[in-house]
Amino acid sequence: MRPGHRYGLHRVLDPIGTMPQPAWKIDNSMELYDNEILIDVETLNIDSASFVQIKEAEGGDPVKVGEHMQRIVQERGKHHNPVTGSGGMLIGTVRQIGERLQGQIDLQESDRIATLVSLSLTPLTINKITDLDIKTGQVGIAGQAILFESGLYAKLPSDLPDRVALAVLDVCGAPAQTAKLVKTGDTVVVLGAGGKSGTMVLYQARKSAGPTGKIIAVEYGEAGCEMLRKLGWADVVLNLDCTKPVEVLEAVEKATAGKFADFTVNCVNIPGTEMTSILSTKDDGTVYFFSMATSFTAAALGAEGVGKDVNMIIGNGYTKGHADLSLQLVRESAELRGLFETKYGL
Amino acid sequence: MRPGHRYGLHRVLDPIGTMPQPAWKIDNSMELYDNEILIDVETLNIDSASFVQIKEAEGGDPVKVGEHMQRIVQERGKHHNPVTGSGGMLIGTVRQIGERLQGQIDLQESDRIATLVSLSLTPLTINKITDLDIKTGQVGIAGQAILFESGLYAKLPSDLPDRVALAVLDVCGAPAQTAKLVKTGDTVVVLGAGGKSGTMVLYQARKSAGPTGKIIAVEYGEAGCEMLRKLGWADVVLNLDCTKPVEVLEAVEKATAGKFADFTVNCVNIPGTEMTSILSTKDDGTVYFFSMATSFTAAALGAEGVGKDVNMIIGNGYTKGHADLSLQLVRESAELRGLFETKYGL
Repeated sequence: MRPGHRYGLHRVLDPIGTMPQPAWKIDNSMELYDNEILIDVETLNIDSASFVQIKEAEGGDPVKVGEHMQRIVQERGKHHNPVTGSGGMLIGTVRQIGERLQGQIDLQESDRIATLVSLSLTPLTINKITDLDIKTGQVGIAGQAILFESGLYAKLPSDLPDRVALAVLDVCGAPAQTAKLVKTGDTVVVLGAGGKSGTMVLYQARKSAGPTGKIIAVEYGEAGCEMLRKLGWADVVLNLDCTKPVEVLEAVEKATAGKFADFTVNCVNIPGTEMTSILSTKDDGTVYFFSMATSFTAAALGAEGVGKDVNMIIGNGYTKGHADLSLQLVRESAELRGLFETKYGL
Repeated sequence: MRPGHRYGLHRVLDPIGTMPQPAWKIDNSMELYDNEILIDVETLNIDSASFVQIKEAEGGDPVKVGEHMQRIVQERGKHHNPVTGSGGMLIGTVRQIGERLQGQIDLQESDRIATLVSLSLTPLTINKITDLDIKTGQVGIAGQAILFESGLYAKLPSDLPDRVALAVLDVCGAPAQTAKLVKTGDTVVVLGAGGKSGTMVLYQARKSAGPTGKIIAVEYGEAGCEMLRKLGWADVVLNLDCTKPVEVLEAVEKATAGKFADFTVNCVNIPGTEMTSILSTKDDGTVYFFSMATSFTAAALGAEGVGKDVNMIIGNGYTKGHADLSLQLVRESAELRGLFETKYGL
């Protein structure tokens, strides 16, 4: 087998010298390099922004959507939507493991896995579209894909439905980072606590901060807040709009007797909530931005503008053991599992 | 005196309920609240993006540029350019200190200070433009400004020229964060090491990492690299384009014998250098993004895409003692002072 580069640089065709993700075109021949993993693909989970764009471009016609997807892969060697720039993830079965990786990783041929790196950098072929769910962007295919040595994956658990596992894996960086950073007794504010990543972060925050910690959940809308109150993981549930920093500031000030949070996690999926995160946090505290709607400059200039000496972290979707930790949370909490089964398991 | 809010919320006129920075209009009446500081303004340092926009809109005519600036302040109560969204900073003399702040802060009436919070949130009046440097955006005025209780400032030192002090204060967050985070013996990569923040970070990194540390400076262009070699603070100076991650990856890999950096600071003022920062850093290392050209999503998705468990920090322009620390660096290093005097002191 030919020797491959850790980051898949050997697959970049155009422009030469870039990484596989920003590259326009990568080599999707399915002949394996010595540090790659070959996967028989079952399902593509197209990124939501990308799927909506393709659907609209093709007037919602499933056949045309499928053809559109095949054209992207033919042109670029990967399902990297040129309009949205985004990809998605895939489910499949390990077909072959490069000889340099054999025995070095916890995978064997015929293991079912989900890839945790974007389709926007994954060499892919689509021979046939077998099933296309126009509502969710889950697309059954016959095809193959390559995972680079640096590529992340998770073995699909046999005790959880695929869709539940995928929903959990999609956000597994957030609870894992929470576990890493929250200490016993901490005051934690979770903004956007009712969503997919928010509920997992909330559960983990309660666990990490323990009974002496104080957990404050902020969610907009009475239905979501009522659900969070029933779950019982937060000491305080606030029904507030996170784009209104002054309202949240005053409520968090009251709930913490003026002390504010040691650790604030932002899981709000709309723009304009950076200042709310900063103002909820005490000096020397940490803000962890997991929301992809975060503006770097709004956060950097916002903290300086109000003279807040807070540590602000860009949510890295990866940290060691993140997939196992998150799946374990869903196993140990019947409430969390129930929530994911109801919301994402259908 | 009327009681004011720590963050200046009492000055917000439109829309009510927002913070002073995002607000369209704030109250610039110069009657003091009890926690505010009144400043007689000498000079406005208009943010470069903002000044260029105004200059172009007015065909480079200094008189019209001045009128344009006065219109902005009249309309919004602050010099908050509606096109670029940016502000700048100011120099002036403390005229009056609100009664609730007296004795609580290290300022006295008639102290000369520079404000370290943006003009985009600072109540301001311009009675007259006395001097306008069309090249630099330094504008002499007769006017007044208000600093909120949360607002940051630095006393202007008597032993340094104003322009040198301003240039140093403009980037003082970066060396201060470096001092906070770099440990003895660390391997540090400074990307964009030849610029204003880069040279200060480089000097501080050498100081913090000590003789057992390893400092790698990356700068694009032979002139800048030659200057860095002469300064002698870096063990290795690499003449490389930071928008080419593969080239930098390979050079840093070689320079560190495959170990990569404990701490990488990004001071590159152009977009597209997130991946270079991530790839230069070892697992469990830290990337500190000081560049305002950083894309949040490029960093977050980039790290996940290559499976790098790195801690990524949004450069907060403020940390306790940042102004004093930075001015001290320029005092203790004749080379650093010479550099700032040559480049920014004219």
